[in-house]
Amino acid sequence: MTRQELIGQIRRKSSFLCVGIDPDPMKLPPHLGSGPGAIIRFCSEIIRATSDFCVAYKLNIAFFEALGKQAWDVLYATREQLPADCLLIADAKRADIGNSSRFYARAFFDDLNFDAVTVSPYMGEDSVRPFLEFTDKWTILLALTSNTGSQDFQMTSSVSGIPLYEQVIARATSWGGPENLMFVAGATHPGQLKHIREIVPDHFLLIPGVGTQGGNLSEVADACLTQDIGILVNSSREIIYASAGEDYSEKAGEHAHRHRNSMRELLDQRIHS
Amino acid sequence: MTRQELIGQIRRKSSFLCVGIDPDPMKLPPHLGSGPGAIIRFCSEIIRATSDFCVAYKLNIAFFEALGKQAWDVLYATREQLPADCLLIADAKRADIGNSSRFYARAFFDDLNFDAVTVSPYMGEDSVRPFLEFTDKWTILLALTSNTGSQDFQMTSSVSGIPLYEQVIARATSWGGPENLMFVAGATHPGQLKHIREIVPDHFLLIPGVGTQGGNLSEVADACLTQDIGILVNSSREIIYASAGEDYSEKAGEHAHRHRNSMRELLDQRIHS
Repeated sequence: MTRQELIGQIRRKSSFLCVGIDPDPMKLPPHLGSGPGAIIRFCSEIIRATSDFCVAYKLNIAFFEALGKQAWDVLYATREQLPADCLLIADAKRADIGNSSRFYARAFFDDLNFDAVTVSPYMGEDSVRPFLEFTDKWTILLALTSNTGSQDFQMTSSVSGIPLYEQVIARATSWGGPENLMFVAGATHPGQLKHIREIVPDHFLLIPGVGTQGGNLSEVADACLTQDIGILVNSSREIIYASAGEDYSEKAGEHAHRHRNSMRELLDQRIHS
Repeated sequence: MTRQELIGQIRRKSSFLCVGIDPDPMKLPPHLGSGPGAIIRFCSEIIRATSDFCVAYKLNIAFFEALGKQAWDVLYATREQLPADCLLIADAKRADIGNSSRFYARAFFDDLNFDAVTVSPYMGEDSVRPFLEFTDKWTILLALTSNTGSQDFQMTSSVSGIPLYEQVIARATSWGGPENLMFVAGATHPGQLKHIREIVPDHFLLIPGVGTQGGNLSEVADACLTQDIGILVNSSREIIYASAGEDYSEKAGEHAHRHRNSMRELLDQRIHS
């Protein structure tokens, strides 16, 4: 999905919502039972109930890998349920030396046919390049994450006074452009979001941390919504675990719908059509 | 495997060799054919031929994940071939927000029963803790990697003049101790290896980059071999792709044997028994 196609989908659906799929076997509605079949059904129903209200899905690969021997079967089966009109993100936070990163890129772009992968910048350019070499795909680089640990290194300032997350963004913009590179920037850092938008006016930002983690949608929009929209706001647990009853998918759909309505309002107020 | 058990194995085998398993379908000996069965056979034979000469195996998860729908089956089957007297490392370079890292830790420690996982520090303490909470397992934190991209951020100095990799090591020593925390430090940085050893005199270092990437075993030993050994030196491609003929496992064994002999010499010279 190209940048223009993504913007088109956002305008069409009046939503910049990304639904995060984090299937935790301990949180499944009890009536679904357990095992790989239950997980696949859970994910499928959540996807079906939310797809009118979002423009992206983010599969958290950690939750799939923890499903034991059937992990990859469940991942493939869930991938097949994802709709083609959404940006499909493997939230994998991968990266290794170039030769190895190439294999991660193949796994998620070629084999699983995701549109985007989240990538960790710690190992530098040659660890990120193999993802960017898939020019019709997206690399979503961790910059300033939403968790408390973002204080430990990402916020550390260099000799020149520039914090690490800014160094990552500045350097990465010479590796990829707004057509194939996004950044992860947490909603829990509203002050920094504004600053990030100044550094990368045209790059999309994938923004986790609204909802459960404490970030606020309106603040996020104030900080970094652009005329090309430029943001995808993720919500995971709040949507997919909205109910543990038989109405779990209905409730997930209602939550996604409500997010979409808030986003539509923001788009109507702030974006010139 | 505890630190004392690891040291015991190193002394018993006169080797601190870690064999890296990076199964690339394009590099398999042609007579093995292709597909999951060929990969499993290749890995099994390499393991069988090298296990007398090494004390650790490092499975590069990137190469397994790129094997398509059967990826996890091949990973599980290969895991089952690994000998119990070796430290078994999942070279996965994972980390995510705490809640997600917990699932990665479960996948590699509980489900796959590895002894150790490589972990990326970029997201900070709460992304690393879930691995360290498995107190009978090892977290191997990326500090200074062997690739050229290590220059991009790891070597960047902070306001206090301390490069990022040193900040990572210094901070992580308050999260885990020499009994459950190792660091990745590339053989391609001999000067820094010495410095790292000064900062963490008791922590094991996992050292890639000898051989294909240009690092030198004797220099590595000069820099950071201790009376408790304190290092695992990894070799991957040089061993497992020593031959593409029918003698591939024999040649892999010979290479591992040669490494072991060099290591035995270094241990004899420098370690008081």
